[in-house]
Amino acid sequence: MPQPDPTVPATSDVRMKGFARRVRVEQAWDWLASQLRPLPTETVALHEAWGRVLSESIVSAVDVPGFPRAMMDGYAVVAADTEGATAYNPLPLQVVDVSLPGAPAHQALTAGQAIRIMTGAPVPQGADAVLPVERVTVETEQILVQDAVARGKHIGPQGEDIVQGHALLPAGRQLRPQDVGVLSSTGNAELPVVRRPRVRVVVTGNELLPAGAMPAGYQIVDANGPMLQALIARDGGIGFQRGIVEDTPQAILAAMQDDADIILVSGGSSVGEEDHAPTLLREHGELAIHGIAMRPSSPAGMGRLGDRLVFLLPGNPVSCLCAYDFFAGRAIRALGGRATNWPYREITATLSRKLVSAVGRVDYARVRQTGDQVEPLAISGASVLSSTTRADGFVIIPQDSEGYPAGATVQVMLYDETPHTTTPTA
Amino acid sequence: MPQPDPTVPATSDVRMKGFARRVRVEQAWDWLASQLRPLPTETVALHEAWGRVLSESIVSAVDVPGFPRAMMDGYAVVAADTEGATAYNPLPLQVVDVSLPGAPAHQALTAGQAIRIMTGAPVPQGADAVLPVERVTVETEQILVQDAVARGKHIGPQGEDIVQGHALLPAGRQLRPQDVGVLSSTGNAELPVVRRPRVRVVVTGNELLPAGAMPAGYQIVDANGPMLQALIARDGGIGFQRGIVEDTPQAILAAMQDDADIILVSGGSSVGEEDHAPTLLREHGELAIHGIAMRPSSPAGMGRLGDRLVFLLPGNPVSCLCAYDFFAGRAIRALGGRATNWPYREITATLSRKLVSAVGRVDYARVRQTGDQVEPLAISGASVLSSTTRADGFVIIPQDSEGYPAGATVQVMLYDETPHTTTPTA
Repeated sequence: MPQPDPTVPATSDVRMKGFARRVRVEQAWDWLASQLRPLPTETVALHEAWGRVLSESIVSAVDVPGFPRAMMDGYAVVAADTEGATAYNPLPLQVVDVSLPGAPAHQALTAGQAIRIMTGAPVPQGADAVLPVERVTVETEQILVQDAVARGKHIGPQGEDIVQGHALLPAGRQLRPQDVGVLSSTGNAELPVVRRPRVRVVVTGNELLPAGAMPAGYQIVDANGPMLQALIARDGGIGFQRGIVEDTPQAILAAMQDDADIILVSGGSSVGEEDHAPTLLREHGELAIHGIAMRPSSPAGMGRLGDRLVFLLPGNPVSCLCAYDFFAGRAIRALGGRATNWPYREITATLSRKLVSAVGRVDYARVRQTGDQVEPLAISGASVLSSTTRADGFVIIPQDSEGYPAGATVQVMLYDETPHTTTPTA
Repeated sequence: MPQPDPTVPATSDVRMKGFARRVRVEQAWDWLASQLRPLPTETVALHEAWGRVLSESIVSAVDVPGFPRAMMDGYAVVAADTEGATAYNPLPLQVVDVSLPGAPAHQALTAGQAIRIMTGAPVPQGADAVLPVERVTVETEQILVQDAVARGKHIGPQGEDIVQGHALLPAGRQLRPQDVGVLSSTGNAELPVVRRPRVRVVVTGNELLPAGAMPAGYQIVDANGPMLQALIARDGGIGFQRGIVEDTPQAILAAMQDDADIILVSGGSSVGEEDHAPTLLREHGELAIHGIAMRPSSPAGMGRLGDRLVFLLPGNPVSCLCAYDFFAGRAIRALGGRATNWPYREITATLSRKLVSAVGRVDYARVRQTGDQVEPLAISGASVLSSTTRADGFVIIPQDSEGYPAGATVQVMLYDETPHTTTPTA
């Protein structure tokens, strides 16, 4: 049953403990949308432009090509000179010069003459057609034309590819490899693009050792920091972390005031005594959303601290991943000028077993793919990150649904559709 | 009509000029498949591992967590002590200690006692259940238990997430963000991954100015170099180019002998006098494939020079893109340990206009998407790179097809499914 009210009363569901109200996912998205504007422009060199988002539309300053060029290897001719030529009635033309790519002929062409020309070479003045090499017999200083050629034939006109003054690519375009090629051919050494968001990762938890350490005693090793860094990179942000932050209000507040566009706080996001970040955000900035009707990730929040957007992500790693994907990733993409939609490939599949949810919350259910079917993973807690490495993707069960029976058709987001790429080297 | 013969006689199609035989695309793929082995392993730091391909399977050296932990905030108890407790018959337990994440209790628990515990904290010795805080009344030094709790309840056992000695991730896995998290939590500071292929881009053509220049006179600016660099990065290679290579056999041979796993030569790939690269490859190495039954890109080739795989890509930029995507990109992905399939999102769409091809060649047709329909772009030559920026994707028309009528259902590869990402920063 749909819930018209944007919040849902807290239930005895222990995961929801402590939150008087839980905001609907859609309401959190609405607040977020009101906060998201692309960052200002910056200039990047052409060789760094791939994948960046144009902040302005690009108009070509030049014609490409800047001159008429041959589309075939052959002979530049005056088309009228070839009228009536056949294999039985070959017509002679005197070869007076050659035009190569980058090395045009030294002279113009007049009636009765031909200039040898290669594909891509400038068509000499006076010529109005290119006769393919297959249609002539080559003699020492002349050719015998065996076929008539029409005016303009096998000539690529000036501006055939790109016309000066025409719009090449619109603002908001995420540049593809071929876009970079076109921008290079039109003489762009630098490009105006949306600045990439700087994202500070604040990992808290006195039980945590930094990534790279071995777990020891009652200390566990930070999984969220490295995972978030990879997610941020995927979404076009510049992530940085500064070790594990001490679990004190002072240390967390200082970290949340770092030089960044977006702050991600991992851990201490709920309403317990030791959950400092929500309190700090309420006191020093704005805690706009806290407690969301979803599973996992219900103890997530978001707000602002000065110019920074702040996301409070639960410390449990599955919750952290889920809250990142629902909210923080979307913000990083939007600030960088990208689309906010899910960065996963979506497929339609059939459920092999039923998938249970509860009305009143959105569920993020990990599934495994086998052919056209997907199987829900055995229910595992938000603390079991390895459930997301065994899964091939996830199904989102909307708030007004109790889940789906076996055999139902569902939309699945696949985790694996994120090719890894790096800035091209020059 | 299918062609049983792997080669097709040259036709009068002028694009095929000069090639005595054209190899079928599938035959070129077969040769290529015989040459592709993942590169040797190298070690990378955890924070550089995202998107890399594991060269060995990873077994966990530890249990995660390494101890039983509380899944709720509450009290660690002996379950038997709570038997019979109700709101009307609360049972008292003495609170003797506290267990926090990373800060375990100092003492073991005995009958009649409770230890305050937070989610994620180690369960003290002697305790066999966690009683949620909602089910007790808290007094000064004791709690009143209002509900019985079963043995093992709200305790996450040691190894709940990951069991020591179990396989975490298989060889060949391209690491996802959550994989990096799991590898961090199991204490992996470094990982064995497939080395990324080094790819030298050799751009030839006396008419070319380097990327970043303005076109001038009869000089045009290199589009293929920057485009190839972006494609290589997308496919996980390390691309590098050293300016424009002089169009002489000496210069091209030297460039083809650069320190790289793969050489991409752009330009001079056909059979003309000025096409040096195929001749050089035949003389100094192996020219395995030259001339392919496809459009564009028929004057493409591939072979080996020493340990290097060499791809001869036509200079026309659309042909260059097409030959890269059909052959070179696939090789780069395979050497880096990735899947060789197309790196594009594939959709099913309806043709709004007919799409004409010819039996005997594979066609790479650029299309524009509008809703569920795709429209073939007006036919434009292989020299018009902007056709690939106006297109949303492409349709591959198989060799045995004459094309498709309007209204036909076709598979479309979308150009835009290549999120840009960069190596995460630490």
